[in-house]
Amino acid sequence: MSKGWVKIVGLGPGDQALVTAQVQDVLVEATDIVGYIPYVRRIAPRDGLTLHESDNRVELDRAAHALQMAAAGQRVVVVSSGDPGVFAMASALFEALEAGPADWLALDIQVLPGITAMLAAAARIGAPLGHDFCAINLSDNLKPWQLIETRLRAAGGAGFAMAFYNPRSKSRPHQFGRALEILREECGGQTLISFARAVSTDEERIVTVSLDEATPEMADMRTVVIVGNRDTRRVGGFVYTPRSAE
Amino acid sequence: MSKGWVKIVGLGPGDQALVTAQVQDVLVEATDIVGYIPYVRRIAPRDGLTLHESDNRVELDRAAHALQMAAAGQRVVVVSSGDPGVFAMASALFEALEAGPADWLALDIQVLPGITAMLAAAARIGAPLGHDFCAINLSDNLKPWQLIETRLRAAGGAGFAMAFYNPRSKSRPHQFGRALEILREECGGQTLISFARAVSTDEERIVTVSLDEATPEMADMRTVVIVGNRDTRRVGGFVYTPRSAE
Repeated sequence: MSKGWVKIVGLGPGDQALVTAQVQDVLVEATDIVGYIPYVRRIAPRDGLTLHESDNRVELDRAAHALQMAAAGQRVVVVSSGDPGVFAMASALFEALEAGPADWLALDIQVLPGITAMLAAAARIGAPLGHDFCAINLSDNLKPWQLIETRLRAAGGAGFAMAFYNPRSKSRPHQFGRALEILREECGGQTLISFARAVSTDEERIVTVSLDEATPEMADMRTVVIVGNRDTRRVGGFVYTPRSAE
Repeated sequence: MSKGWVKIVGLGPGDQALVTAQVQDVLVEATDIVGYIPYVRRIAPRDGLTLHESDNRVELDRAAHALQMAAAGQRVVVVSSGDPGVFAMASALFEALEAGPADWLALDIQVLPGITAMLAAAARIGAPLGHDFCAINLSDNLKPWQLIETRLRAAGGAGFAMAFYNPRSKSRPHQFGRALEILREECGGQTLISFARAVSTDEERIVTVSLDEATPEMADMRTVVIVGNRDTRRVGGFVYTPRSAE
């Protein structure tokens, strides 16, 4: 039996030109691709490659399936959008590894980084994350909403810029409005906030307003939201956060 | 006169396989490369390309030089290690743009993302940034040390994982020890901390210990430091932070 492996890779935000050569190379070697439907659809079909699409919210099952196939000698690539270590499949894979049979610990497992959405968005906006910043997943699927509020207050109060993943979904329409309220209190209403949707794709749309002007409808689940600190400002068509602070 | 431009690009942490195709392409089109000496040395010399190396801590001069050359019709690539928007040249360029002549505002300026050190390091470690996290520059060149302490306490107290850039230099030997003390107080001494030096290069070295075991000497200026949250743990040879929290 040939030696199997699992590589958990980041496909970047959408544009093929943002995929690393390292990730391109392992896609060529793979026998199986595992991932959430829209990410697997980014992989070109070919002979000898099986595409395993799965729905959202089954990350642990998907991870266990990948580990099982690698244990059986297959070369498995788990695909995430962006970077696999940022609110994506890498942690789910290690959770499945921990919960699984002991012989999985001997498997050849590797995480290959990618361009995460907040950094692709920041590049299009200018340099809004050019000073200390936080990345927060605003979904309360896996943590209590109260903890998210605590973190928003801590980060805003200490002058961090912030990037938000999963800012808003149909199942929790009011939470992002509440987040904006907290941000206005902690950061001041004049602080700039950018909504970056579908960055690097044909549907890219980027809007920057003040927190006072921001409304929950400006974000959806394909949007990364970036909030500056009190020094963040516009220059020409760009928004940037200076390197220095007082 | 041909139309000049400036592209501020990220070369990733060191391995050429981690450079995006987008960045490779603009390096081919460039007439001038501008950057800190070790980053410019990563670019292969060729006819028609001028390499402008500059020392550390002259970021604003370097940025103004890049803008001047673009205004004169040259195609200028400003190179950063990692991602240009994370403690690198993008903010410096916009600072120079703001301080410069008004006609620079009409220049063709673009930021192209790269694999930033913390995400390359996290991938090698496992998934230590798999939950909400902060990125903090521990250098007090451009901000007061007291603000760094405030941010460490805010982030640790709210349960963020953390990545530290520029953790330690010869000119400030005691500060990183002080940072470790604060982290022990806020996060608990059993929290895992990883020191990732020169990730993706031949000199890569990665060590994970508890905060109680950590000493300042484990970091230098080529090290990215990643601190987990209270749930961060080991599985096999990896360290990961679960996706969920209570």
